[in-house]
Amino acid sequence: MPGHPSRIAPPPEAAGLRADARHNRDRILDAAREAFATRGLDVPMAAIARRAGVGVATLYRRFPSRESLVTEVFADQLDACGAAVEEAMADPDPWRAFRTAIEKVCAMQLADRGFTAAFLTAFPEAVDFERLRARAELCFAEVVRRAKDAGQLRADFEPADLVLLLKAGNAIAAEPGEVAAAGSRRLVAYLLQAFRAEHAEPLPPAPPLGLGHVYAPAAR
Amino acid sequence: MPGHPSRIAPPPEAAGLRADARHNRDRILDAAREAFATRGLDVPMAAIARRAGVGVATLYRRFPSRESLVTEVFADQLDACGAAVEEAMADPDPWRAFRTAIEKVCAMQLADRGFTAAFLTAFPEAVDFERLRARAELCFAEVVRRAKDAGQLRADFEPADLVLLLKAGNAIAAEPGEVAAAGSRRLVAYLLQAFRAEHAEPLPPAPPLGLGHVYAPAAR
Repeated sequence: MPGHPSRIAPPPEAAGLRADARHNRDRILDAAREAFATRGLDVPMAAIARRAGVGVATLYRRFPSRESLVTEVFADQLDACGAAVEEAMADPDPWRAFRTAIEKVCAMQLADRGFTAAFLTAFPEAVDFERLRARAELCFAEVVRRAKDAGQLRADFEPADLVLLLKAGNAIAAEPGEVAAAGSRRLVAYLLQAFRAEHAEPLPPAPPLGLGHVYAPAAR
Repeated sequence: MPGHPSRIAPPPEAAGLRADARHNRDRILDAAREAFATRGLDVPMAAIARRAGVGVATLYRRFPSRESLVTEVFADQLDACGAAVEEAMADPDPWRAFRTAIEKVCAMQLADRGFTAAFLTAFPEAVDFERLRARAELCFAEVVRRAKDAGQLRADFEPADLVLLLKAGNAIAAEPGEVAAAGSRRLVAYLLQAFRAEHAEPLPPAPPLGLGHVYAPAAR
């Protein structure tokens, strides 16, 4: 949306809206969730408005920027993702904690492809969203540290490898249902075995990939 | 292209064309190669004609179906792919043969993403193309058999795992240059370690994926 102001006031809290405005807001969020899952985060704002059955002006009144819409749609999932990793962290077995964290994030990916894209994209202005991601990242880093310290996770595992797994997994999650589920589980199982420290062989360097620094949506 | 006849006579051999017709044909093939690599095999025929600077009628006169265009564009690469696997097969070390075959196919994927899509799609009417793929498949099956017989490749490796790797790898190959190259190499290195027979742990079942049976382009 070139030229569209993205730093104007945040959308009014849902609680303070009249019933019809709240109804519009819910329709927009539903339409956006579906559009992001099937077409990616770059789907035109106009297409979301059309799908929601509201005017573009209404859409922008509720969500003045693409970021505000993406982060609103995925905030709950990101919160659940952080909670899942935190829960995994409680496991006294460091490898099982690592494995559970990976498997849970990949299961979320399978359920909603848009989530992975949102998770991998930085939204510097969406403070709450970034705080949720920072928590998930911190927890995951701790899970990784413990599994390495225990000699169970290979020492050359890097955070970029999680991004690699998520990007590869997103392609599999795009397959028809049965293939997506079986393919995702099998890919994750293979990679988890490759991540084990025992008998690990040298690897080429990790790609320059980081959570939240991977790509910016093409349009704002 | 609903309703477009896809079984009409094959395009005339390039050798028999007048110079300007040959020039058009080359421009179409160049445009198609670029379009397939960046937008996938489903790119509209009209977009290819536009990119080549020819009319849609001219495009269809040369290439009466999408299949005839795709298979013409990728025949050389498929041939090279089969030759690479055949060459790998000559290695007396069965594991090195397997590893080389995987690495070579993935390097081709990195060089041209359209190739993977063509490799994974069945074109029942393109007899020569299917023959080239059958050769590559047969050679790969033999490489797999030998590596398993030698106890180096895990017994539960399935052809679907190559498709899984190619589909996952295609997502990485779509990243910007530096990430694509490093990411692809790292993913392949991880998976090759997971494919080793020693210390292999049980896996969930392979997804129902087969070479040449994976998806059909949306439009003909």
